[in-house]
Amino acid sequence: MRPERQLLVCVHTRPPGNSKGSCGEKGSEGLLHALKDLLRERGLTERVMVTRTYCLKHCGHGATIAVQPDNVWYAAVRPEDLAEIVGSHLEQGRPVARLLMPDVPWE
Amino acid sequence: MRPERQLLVCVHTRPPGNSKGSCGEKGSEGLLHALKDLLRERGLTERVMVTRTYCLKHCGHGATIAVQPDNVWYAAVRPEDLAEIVGSHLEQGRPVARLLMPDVPWE
Repeated sequence: MRPERQLLVCVHTRPPGNSKGSCGEKGSEGLLHALKDLLRERGLTERVMVTRTYCLKHCGHGATIAVQPDNVWYAAVRPEDLAEIVGSHLEQGRPVARLLMPDVPWE
Repeated sequence: MRPERQLLVCVHTRPPGNSKGSCGEKGSEGLLHALKDLLRERGLTERVMVTRTYCLKHCGHGATIAVQPDNVWYAAVRPEDLAEIVGSHLEQGRPVARLLMPDVPWE
């Protein structure tokens, strides 16, 4: 049974001071747990799989979350953005335009 | 710039003897490197992103590789299967039927 949607949350962490930065340094572990809590509250855990990933190659734009199979990529996600991602994108099928990853090559 | 396709390779490893088993124990790190080599040989590195993931929740059917945004999931992938995944699925758009994940709930 394939997930209806799969959320990829980059939790890659580089050492402090690394010039690339990393999603882990920008709090992505916290995002992951908050996201799981939200999905549980909304009854979405059977339809949406949350996957922790290593580097999603947009380090400079973290924290990065990709939504598949929509192939929608979100940049600089903060905890206060999660409810909108879940409500607008996952529940209503409308990706959150203001959070979309800029159209840059992956690193 | 979003990848045309994203290959998710589970590299999660459980301790030896764990009853669930894990993709890591089934050689998924080797698969990952072989896959990257193949993509390089075929000139696909600009279009296909390879992402290492933590648990993809099909431990009993590993090694697991998911292809997004196709939402195609492969089970029990072995090194000798990779050329077919790349050639048939990625290059010709025909998923490899014999490797498809059985229709079971994720764990």
